[in-house]
Amino acid sequence: MPKVVALAGGVGGAKLAFGLARNLPPDELTVVVNTGDDDDFHGLHVAPDLDTVMYTLAGVVNPQTGWGRAGDTFAALKGLKEAGEETWFQLGDLDLAVHIRRTHLLREGHTLSEVTRELCERFGVRHAVVPMSDNPVRTIVHTPSEKLSFQEYFVKHRCEPEVRSLEFKGAGRATPSPYFEFAVARADALVIAPSNPFLSVDPILAIPGVAGALKGIRGIRVAISPIIGDRAVKGPAARLFDQIGGEPPSCVAVARRYVGLCTHMVIDRTDEHREEEIGRLGITPVVAQTLMNSNEDRVALGRAVLDLIASST
Amino acid sequence: MPKVVALAGGVGGAKLAFGLARNLPPDELTVVVNTGDDDDFHGLHVAPDLDTVMYTLAGVVNPQTGWGRAGDTFAALKGLKEAGEETWFQLGDLDLAVHIRRTHLLREGHTLSEVTRELCERFGVRHAVVPMSDNPVRTIVHTPSEKLSFQEYFVKHRCEPEVRSLEFKGAGRATPSPYFEFAVARADALVIAPSNPFLSVDPILAIPGVAGALKGIRGIRVAISPIIGDRAVKGPAARLFDQIGGEPPSCVAVARRYVGLCTHMVIDRTDEHREEEIGRLGITPVVAQTLMNSNEDRVALGRAVLDLIASST
Repeated sequence: MPKVVALAGGVGGAKLAFGLARNLPPDELTVVVNTGDDDDFHGLHVAPDLDTVMYTLAGVVNPQTGWGRAGDTFAALKGLKEAGEETWFQLGDLDLAVHIRRTHLLREGHTLSEVTRELCERFGVRHAVVPMSDNPVRTIVHTPSEKLSFQEYFVKHRCEPEVRSLEFKGAGRATPSPYFEFAVARADALVIAPSNPFLSVDPILAIPGVAGALKGIRGIRVAISPIIGDRAVKGPAARLFDQIGGEPPSCVAVARRYVGLCTHMVIDRTDEHREEEIGRLGITPVVAQTLMNSNEDRVALGRAVLDLIASST
Repeated sequence: MPKVVALAGGVGGAKLAFGLARNLPPDELTVVVNTGDDDDFHGLHVAPDLDTVMYTLAGVVNPQTGWGRAGDTFAALKGLKEAGEETWFQLGDLDLAVHIRRTHLLREGHTLSEVTRELCERFGVRHAVVPMSDNPVRTIVHTPSEKLSFQEYFVKHRCEPEVRSLEFKGAGRATPSPYFEFAVARADALVIAPSNPFLSVDPILAIPGVAGALKGIRGIRVAISPIIGDRAVKGPAARLFDQIGGEPPSCVAVARRYVGLCTHMVIDRTDEHREEEIGRLGITPVVAQTLMNSNEDRVALGRAVLDLIASST
């Protein structure tokens, strides 16, 4: 089987990671996860995308939301509010325990990579889930009037403020995590999950050396479009194309962002008529069902991506 | 009304503090709480005695145990175990939230005194509840074979190991908290709650200058015996008299520990026959019902202590 490096953000990335993991043995897949969304809540290190991927692969994710833990309760959050903490960021009790554990291990001197590996072992996740970097990178959203942390923009303000630009604070001084570098060096293929290009993938690419290293992966490099028609499956990807992407949202607009990085792009059946446009960008379009509503959908899309990789290797 | 400084440990101290607080306006009572029991769990600063006093005064304490929160749940603890933390120390979700808040504020640079004040305000506790010190003091239990942290001894090993000696690590370098010093300087009376003399009161007295300052309080200085007959109302006080106290447990043995510090001692009705022995130690015995099974009992004992203070001032 080919050795695959997949770049992922939160829910969309986690769903594809699930589909790939069901089709690949553990040592053939490394899921590299955006940590630009990480933040400090209540003095605890919260890594939403890492947890979403880990919970999804472990089968304990909340199936309704796609993030958080299935069947979680919110007693401690009530206690935090009562004790004077700001609690607009929803943290369930089981989820909170993971943040406490992560923070505990980080404070003891372990790297985020080590902590993530330890947590994944605890959760029975055998495929490698690795942070993009062990250095802090924080996505800052610049609006016309202020700078917001990613979670302020995403959760507190529900993606409503107009985005003027994004800043990946710390990225310039960050290095890729050791497992990320190792996985890229031995990879046969790159997969970019249907995650937000601006908020999930760009922070990874902003780390010096990463884009070049990814382009050096010998096999095919395939992205799955998170835009179907003119809409994002989830989150603010579509409106970000309008606000900072320079063109209306479409799978073609996504492809344009990956020119030079990707050799192939998976687009949804409903976008079949845009194959030619994508081809003109020097990217080979591949049509599949990209909407992942069930585990079967996820496994099927993972299978399709791996078939593509196998047929091109 | 007299200005009272009360020294307290956990459950017994909290019950008396409740009884005093119901009989005194907020600015007439300062409850100084042992922090030798404080410990780090999951990277969080847990202050069991401070919380027991705060929860009791706030009316949110678990009435069954005397510590922890009424109606608390333990979802996060389950999550902590699953994530790889040791979870022999029971922390409810609402309780955990307080430790998260405390740790958050401490990490931001606030002192334990400031944090405790902030938490008490949040919980509507208007009487002053103050840590004995803002410096770390940790009670270490020396057994024949090992050194245990206080909570290992008390909770993990259920007070079963034989105690050879106690060490109050850090006490020699600690200073009394600012509110403690301030309260002592203006106090008309000292009350030592029916807390464990070895584990709750001695750590406070181990801070340099504290014993001398307390002896300088002009009014009466009264302790309530935590031993009734030859038994402790709760906890290992009785067995500690046998193991390190040099004599069997009794209210007289308690009185002997407070010679020079206390002028009066409240003993239970069942110990009335020992009045003379206590008198011979230079301590005036006062008989009352000291068992506090209900809020009425607590208020009555508080009233009795305050009547004693008023009649002697």
